[in-house]
Amino acid sequence: MSKRFSISKYSCVLLCYMVAQIGLVAQEHPSLILTKKGVNEIRGKLGTVPLLDASLKEVKKEVDREIAWGIDIPTPKDYSGGYTHERHKRNFLMMQKAGVLFQILQDEKYANYLKELLFGYEAMYKSLPVHPKKRSYARGKLFWQCLNDANWLVYVSQAYDCIYDWLSPKEREELEKNLFRPYADFISIANPQFFNRVHNHSTWGNAAVGMIGLVMGDEELVNRALFGIAKDNINPNAKDNDGGYIKTQGKTGFYANLQEPFSPDGYYTEGPYYQRYAMYPFLMFATGLHNVKPELKVFAHKDSVILKSVKTLVNLTDSDGEFFPFNDAQKGMSYQSRELTTAVDIAYHYGNQAPELLSIAKKQGRVLLDQSGLAVAKAIANGEALPFKKESVHFSDGSNGDEGGISVLRNGDLELVFKYTAQGLSHGHYDKLSFMLFNKGVEVLQDYGMARFVNIEQKGGGNYLNENTSWAKQSIAHNTVVVNEKSHFNGQYEIASKNHSEAYFFSTAQPGVQIASAKEKNAYPGVQMHRTMAVLKDADFEHPLILDLLKVNSDQEANYDLPFYFIGQLINTDFEFEIKNPVAALGTANGYQHLYLEASGRTASENLKFSWLNNKVFHTLTSLTGSEDELLFTRIGADDPEFNLRRDAGFMIRRKQSSDTLFASIIETHGGYSPVSELSLNSKSSIVALKQFINDDLYTAIGIQHQNGNQKLFVLANQNADKSAKHELKINNKTYQWKGPFLFTDINE
Amino acid sequence: MSKRFSISKYSCVLLCYMVAQIGLVAQEHPSLILTKKGVNEIRGKLGTVPLLDASLKEVKKEVDREIAWGIDIPTPKDYSGGYTHERHKRNFLMMQKAGVLFQILQDEKYANYLKELLFGYEAMYKSLPVHPKKRSYARGKLFWQCLNDANWLVYVSQAYDCIYDWLSPKEREELEKNLFRPYADFISIANPQFFNRVHNHSTWGNAAVGMIGLVMGDEELVNRALFGIAKDNINPNAKDNDGGYIKTQGKTGFYANLQEPFSPDGYYTEGPYYQRYAMYPFLMFATGLHNVKPELKVFAHKDSVILKSVKTLVNLTDSDGEFFPFNDAQKGMSYQSRELTTAVDIAYHYGNQAPELLSIAKKQGRVLLDQSGLAVAKAIANGEALPFKKESVHFSDGSNGDEGGISVLRNGDLELVFKYTAQGLSHGHYDKLSFMLFNKGVEVLQDYGMARFVNIEQKGGGNYLNENTSWAKQSIAHNTVVVNEKSHFNGQYEIASKNHSEAYFFSTAQPGVQIASAKEKNAYPGVQMHRTMAVLKDADFEHPLILDLLKVNSDQEANYDLPFYFIGQLINTDFEFEIKNPVAALGTANGYQHLYLEASGRTASENLKFSWLNNKVFHTLTSLTGSEDELLFTRIGADDPEFNLRRDAGFMIRRKQSSDTLFASIIETHGGYSPVSELSLNSKSSIVALKQFINDDLYTAIGIQHQNGNQKLFVLANQNADKSAKHELKINNKTYQWKGPFLFTDINE
Repeated sequence: MSKRFSISKYSCVLLCYMVAQIGLVAQEHPSLILTKKGVNEIRGKLGTVPLLDASLKEVKKEVDREIAWGIDIPTPKDYSGGYTHERHKRNFLMMQKAGVLFQILQDEKYANYLKELLFGYEAMYKSLPVHPKKRSYARGKLFWQCLNDANWLVYVSQAYDCIYDWLSPKEREELEKNLFRPYADFISIANPQFFNRVHNHSTWGNAAVGMIGLVMGDEELVNRALFGIAKDNINPNAKDNDGGYIKTQGKTGFYANLQEPFSPDGYYTEGPYYQRYAMYPFLMFATGLHNVKPELKVFAHKDSVILKSVKTLVNLTDSDGEFFPFNDAQKGMSYQSRELTTAVDIAYHYGNQAPELLSIAKKQGRVLLDQSGLAVAKAIANGEALPFKKESVHFSDGSNGDEGGISVLRNGDLELVFKYTAQGLSHGHYDKLSFMLFNKGVEVLQDYGMARFVNIEQKGGGNYLNENTSWAKQSIAHNTVVVNEKSHFNGQYEIASKNHSEAYFFSTAQPGVQIASAKEKNAYPGVQMHRTMAVLKDADFEHPLILDLLKVNSDQEANYDLPFYFIGQLINTDFEFEIKNPVAALGTANGYQHLYLEASGRTASENLKFSWLNNKVFHTLTSLTGSEDELLFTRIGADDPEFNLRRDAGFMIRRKQSSDTLFASIIETHGGYSPVSELSLNSKSSIVALKQFINDDLYTAIGIQHQNGNQKLFVLANQNADKSAKHELKINNKTYQWKGPFLFTDINE
Repeated sequence: MSKRFSISKYSCVLLCYMVAQIGLVAQEHPSLILTKKGVNEIRGKLGTVPLLDASLKEVKKEVDREIAWGIDIPTPKDYSGGYTHERHKRNFLMMQKAGVLFQILQDEKYANYLKELLFGYEAMYKSLPVHPKKRSYARGKLFWQCLNDANWLVYVSQAYDCIYDWLSPKEREELEKNLFRPYADFISIANPQFFNRVHNHSTWGNAAVGMIGLVMGDEELVNRALFGIAKDNINPNAKDNDGGYIKTQGKTGFYANLQEPFSPDGYYTEGPYYQRYAMYPFLMFATGLHNVKPELKVFAHKDSVILKSVKTLVNLTDSDGEFFPFNDAQKGMSYQSRELTTAVDIAYHYGNQAPELLSIAKKQGRVLLDQSGLAVAKAIANGEALPFKKESVHFSDGSNGDEGGISVLRNGDLELVFKYTAQGLSHGHYDKLSFMLFNKGVEVLQDYGMARFVNIEQKGGGNYLNENTSWAKQSIAHNTVVVNEKSHFNGQYEIASKNHSEAYFFSTAQPGVQIASAKEKNAYPGVQMHRTMAVLKDADFEHPLILDLLKVNSDQEANYDLPFYFIGQLINTDFEFEIKNPVAALGTANGYQHLYLEASGRTASENLKFSWLNNKVFHTLTSLTGSEDELLFTRIGADDPEFNLRRDAGFMIRRKQSSDTLFASIIETHGGYSPVSELSLNSKSSIVALKQFINDDLYTAIGIQHQNGNQKLFVLANQNADKSAKHELKINNKTYQWKGPFLFTDINE
């Protein structure tokens, strides 16, 4: 034990406190997630709480089918998606469920099934070598990576807890000696590069070791989980398979993983897709600690960030409940996932019983079979659910909330996600100041997401594909500006991970205006980028307008590319273009090698218009331009030898040899088309002109002229985000006065 | 009148009978669609029949909003999608509805609104020149083509009927003299090339003239509608804008349009998209004739084909109710269209009250505001609706049912459409023996549909685009074989329209087997094509298999291309391929100029495997092949200067310098993937080998070997489709005996 006390003062104090507590209470079982009291309450309510009963019926059906099918514990062999991987995954999911069913139904068939599986694993594990597949930086035994081995233990520790008392002391001893203890040691002591990080991988590892420790009453394992391994001998420059650093100096264990990646707003720096993945071990281990060691007050840690983050996560979903797919993220992943059932139920029960979480639970249509699920199901049955109203929000990034952030601007059916976060660890993309736009939950301007087919073995073993690095992470794969065809930070994680964008301001104070503004000064040496995005409701327009002001200042002339990855079919443009034949890649590196150049054009006008039809709705981009700008029509999919990429379209404004410049655009959502009625309504842009009035260091001012003659003015104060600062500016011989960093008003001529 | 009697014996007899009937009854109004009796019944039921009440409320809301908005009758100027086009279209839709509301609600505001519109048109029409847009072979006055002018009159004649009695005789006289009579003459006598055809255009023209004739009691107009114009001086070689012949010698008028394009099975030769469009005038005019001249028994004509065709039309929809998009057809058009509300209600009421039509009406969620809508709404309220069970069907094509046909093979979630029809008039494609495949209503292997954005003015005035001819109609745009890179019939309508494929057999007699087989001998001189498609349910496979046997015999060596336009993402192949860079078009003509060649490969194996993921389900094509076959990965979109085409993928087997050959394939549907659970199930093909046992003039026999060792045998008798013919054949030293044109059985080795 003495080793453990050398970590840090903070750890030491906490640990002393903890050690003092351990052993005071004779531990009963189950106690980790389900408690004896909880089981009694659930049993007392059976048949009276619809959602709980339905969830129980569903789980029982699934486990019964599995028991009928029979047990298989195959010799580990495959990557994700292969049989042995999927079988072991299914086994641990079923074990957890069988344990719960045994407790609730008190039918020994579930305990017997579970016991047979556990001893099957016990028999195999004793002599099990490291997994034969070699791709991982931390190979597991049952699975190709320790990460999945940790998944297994997080679930199986719950299962073990459920039949702990039912097993004989001798049986428990065998399991603990031959399976659980060596298993926990393997994923921690034998793999510090996996266990001792600030990363979702380690969160799983910490939780796995800690949870089995709680069940076994093994203080050493619990401490290892909470504070990490003191001496890990990890090379500080070592990286994982995704290119992320292994080591975050001096920060290890569950508390560090709770402290570091969450911002005070509950934003998890890897983004929602990985937050979802990490939430399960965070919440399960926390629940276990809450139940076994309530004195640690783990849910209250860092201003209850772990519970708060659940609401943040729901806020980072589109109107269909799908997570905004920035950083490495699978499109379609949503709050329907099993991890979010856990998150919502636990946040409700162990948090402040927020009734808006109940409406999400209703949509999920199932609850956990434990105290938290009972609480949620009862509250729903009592009619306590309220709608979860997603509004425009800004979430800070960074442990202290000072490393940029992310905004979601919402109005009507439109949702705009504007990203100015830190890098987001190894799953982060080089996408400073990028955005994506949704209409009714459907992508209008997309972020590509990740290049990976999770668990589809034929596609690179279900793992990250080469194109994830060569395309999806690169700056040009995002709706943001690229300088000299290089990615932000030159695509170097070493630099990127030390920097972050700066939030300039976020405001929803003016009715009908949602606005966020941020700056990025480090992505390119000598280049400052300042982007402001707003959703503007105006009576002259059918739907709110998207305003996009992207100001770039460079200390030397550079070439700028600003892509818009529109989804849908081109309807028309107001400029001429020529298609290419044959069609070749736009470049050779930094993602450009994956873009076909299908056509290009130029315009003599001061504006360009580009209209497309997406999901039966028309959209038009109107942008400030000039005859120097090249207007490029791209298509993703070049240099893609295994057809891993989607053949999606892009439109790009290329501005060469500029130093200081302004990209100003309005995106209109208008009208609609029905293939059933064959009616095409309001299919044309209502904007006749977009004008630049001023663009200097202090102010940027643009005019938007509607075809009905009305004109709007938008002014941004570039250097002063103070809400109460007073401004005065003369535009076209008229003086405007206002307070705060922006002005949006009608121009009365 | 004497001119009219010279047409044909048949017409003459009918006409004599008709003339004898006319004038015997003093005509009351409304009498065309709504009748006085019907109005009284509807009024008596108001507030008691939910679907009728809901439909009335909806229509009232719409018309009230329109009345509040005000009246506009702009000077005609635009193509489809432009303001004047859409305004006049909206006006006629509103007039028909206002007339019905006046009758049912007896509120004069609707009559006044209608009268103001009618006299507005009366004032304009007197001096209205031909429409300024010149693209049509038959220019209208209110619209750019007579077709839309006819649409107007079909609706407005109903409106006029509804306020006929409410108007003064003088007002009626003015309207008839200055508007209706000259209007009817313009779209018929002044445009015989539009009016005197066998074509959906003429059906609209006939109905328009006939319906206003029925309202006005004008026998001459009614006769003109029923029998056409005797002498039209149309050049027999003249063509319309779509390349179709104007003239069908000796066949004119409504009866001819009823007689010719419908097969005895109720299949309309232009296909479901145009059948839907034509159904409205067919059924409206027929209803008018039924009401005003019941003695003509128009609904009973040709074994009640007009009513029967409604069920055929519903059978030609996928599981979401969308029409199978072959020939020129807009994807997404469905039985939710207003024309199908008309069709279903009228077929129910004036047919045999088939309760399965009620379930379609329920899905439509609205009924007509007339006797038929009342009947449907009442029956639904009485709980009489039964499911419309779509089963595997064959529909013959051709007036006498002897010009090939179309099959829909259904099993579980799979729907396979196999086409071996006649050309289908000017909207037909060169797609002999092509097919398309749907899973749960989603395309798995697609037919491109048409290259047109109906009513979206920016896209070529909303009309057919050049790419419709250069791509969508060409053979290579379909899942069928192309010989020497030329389209069927060399893409010449003159030849294509004189030919048709031959149904060989269709059978659902063997449980679990749906099968259709057809031959095409005229698409290429000296080439015979024989394709057999089946959906085979077999216990060894998760879902039914699609069997595709395409036997080609040529009297000289030729090159064959067989494309599969799969939708979705390539998962893997069992052969190597190389991607191209740059990417160029596969050819220069016949549609090939629109296909990029993205990659190509070869295999040394006897089978190829090609798997893709579509709508979260895996599909695998296993096909007989060899090292001589080129395996091409294509993408639609080359030579597309206005981005009119979708960038959809294709996979093509190219077999060069062969004379007689067999393309044999199995398409498996298997497993699934969820981006929420991230589970990938049964993602691999279960077939280890597809073997050719025999392929000669008399028999084609193939073996399908499952990975579990089981083997299936499929044998086709190539020359004898007799159901009771006995066959005996030795395969691998075993003798098989069976009856009928095919054998599908297990091989017991």
